[in-house]
Amino acid sequence: MQGVVALTDLVETEIAKLDFSKEPKDLYDPISYTLNNKGKRIRPVLTLLACNMFSENIEKAVKPAIGLEVFHNFTLLHDDIMDNAPVRRGKTTVHMKWNVNTAILSGDTMMVEAYKLVAEAPDFCLRKVLELFSELSIGVCEGQMYDMEFEDRAVVSVNEYLKMIELKTSVLIAGALKMGAIIGNANANDAENIYHFGINLGLAFQLLDDWLDVYSDPKVFGKKTGGDIVANKKTFMLITALEKAKGIKEQELNNWLEINNFEEQDKIAAVRNIYNELSIGDITMKKAKEYSAKAFEYLNKIGVDEDKKLALKKLGESLLNRIK
Amino acid sequence: MQGVVALTDLVETEIAKLDFSKEPKDLYDPISYTLNNKGKRIRPVLTLLACNMFSENIEKAVKPAIGLEVFHNFTLLHDDIMDNAPVRRGKTTVHMKWNVNTAILSGDTMMVEAYKLVAEAPDFCLRKVLELFSELSIGVCEGQMYDMEFEDRAVVSVNEYLKMIELKTSVLIAGALKMGAIIGNANANDAENIYHFGINLGLAFQLLDDWLDVYSDPKVFGKKTGGDIVANKKTFMLITALEKAKGIKEQELNNWLEINNFEEQDKIAAVRNIYNELSIGDITMKKAKEYSAKAFEYLNKIGVDEDKKLALKKLGESLLNRIK
Repeated sequence: MQGVVALTDLVETEIAKLDFSKEPKDLYDPISYTLNNKGKRIRPVLTLLACNMFSENIEKAVKPAIGLEVFHNFTLLHDDIMDNAPVRRGKTTVHMKWNVNTAILSGDTMMVEAYKLVAEAPDFCLRKVLELFSELSIGVCEGQMYDMEFEDRAVVSVNEYLKMIELKTSVLIAGALKMGAIIGNANANDAENIYHFGINLGLAFQLLDDWLDVYSDPKVFGKKTGGDIVANKKTFMLITALEKAKGIKEQELNNWLEINNFEEQDKIAAVRNIYNELSIGDITMKKAKEYSAKAFEYLNKIGVDEDKKLALKKLGESLLNRIK
Repeated sequence: MQGVVALTDLVETEIAKLDFSKEPKDLYDPISYTLNNKGKRIRPVLTLLACNMFSENIEKAVKPAIGLEVFHNFTLLHDDIMDNAPVRRGKTTVHMKWNVNTAILSGDTMMVEAYKLVAEAPDFCLRKVLELFSELSIGVCEGQMYDMEFEDRAVVSVNEYLKMIELKTSVLIAGALKMGAIIGNANANDAENIYHFGINLGLAFQLLDDWLDVYSDPKVFGKKTGGDIVANKKTFMLITALEKAKGIKEQELNNWLEINNFEEQDKIAAVRNIYNELSIGDITMKKAKEYSAKAFEYLNKIGVDEDKKLALKKLGESLLNRIK
């Protein structure tokens, strides 16, 4: 069994080998620029860990795994245009550094490059791997559309939100795991179980992320807390609060959502206070723990020796370690 | 052998069967809207004709052929954003009818749908078909990037222009033909020959299009003449004229390229006059005929009975009938 650190290094080396130093430069430079980031490469590592659970030979999963990372970065590139985001992981976004047209077209090209890599899956599972990849790609697009649509809507239900983050976040994590399992020649049951492990892990991870924006120590979390509150982002926290708040508290919350002139710290403190009174943090954490427990149940069901599950278990726990 | 009319009907029926009446509506409605157009469906018809040249059974080529049409429409959708085009085939473009974000995301989804259809190629040639599709998709993206880049450049050489239209136009036509040949189980030589038939046909077609903008009868051509001249579009005609014009004529041409206030008819007449004096129309037509002749040489080389080539020959000729 290979460890996460070694696999991350392998992924990084393989990504560095992709050669985009070609013409036209304006098409390919943004691709190199996008892929050369400080990302955790979590998706391809999940693919390789999942493959390794069922097969000693992970070589055949490397190119498809890298394809998923290229695809993930393509979605970030296009999402950043749609969100009009100026910065991604500390770097100017492509549509700001070049322009929107270049960002659209370089993104399109990355998507083709992703398919090229995924299509290097072995013959015995090529069709299945492609079907999975297309299905998850469609899911991610649907999730992004719901996300944009929700931003323009007054009311979003908790279930709608959960469906959206399942599509936008979990489907790619779950698909990365299932792709590894398929290439490792897992049986259909095990492939399904690892998929559902990923779906629930992704949901737990996203809910934790929503919680951390409100309650984490910025020194540990690595980004400013309260950003979602300032931006009125419809997270699980806010949506739940809007469902629970009644009377004066409802009015107060809506006031903070409507005013345009405020001190950021005042708004963060006030909304956090409302969340406290409504136990939104506890509700969110409880939900995250439910998903986490469900994820590990699915992992338990997989029919391989426990020691083969260890690396994936540890990685899953480390992603969620702050809710244990 | 099936005729062009029957195959066009088959393609239209298959496109109508694609079901995009699903959620989220804002993602899928623009896809139905884009595919429901008055296009000639030339690319999928070429795929089916090419397949039929080598095989009686064209059923197995239908889904991949439709995939190429979906891909072509995806490129138009994204190109229209980049060109800020308000209308396409008489209909408001997606980014104008909905918005840019929707157009980006629906386009991305169409590209995945295109891959799904192409990936329905039979097992024996699946990998080859996918490699071809990815290669031509990359080519089209490169072509679009060169096209945008050339619009911002003062000087573009004839060879650069020919390379650009080869990528932007010919590669998809040639790829459509080659895909049909591969699925029809043609040998490698025949697949190459039909590819080069397509490349040269595409180049002849584009040069003819450039010529027609200047010299055609608008009642026959179906669109206003002189549009390229008014917009300073870097066509084969203009690029050749800029290479040939010396002295006063060069000055005169550059003046017309630089002024912003003019009567459209004056500019068209003046530039057409310069083209006449420099024989630009003749040069362009000669070049188009060279490509056309080359195309049919490649078609001749293909190792099947002449009667099997007839439908493709007729279609090729009808596309170019105005230069015969």
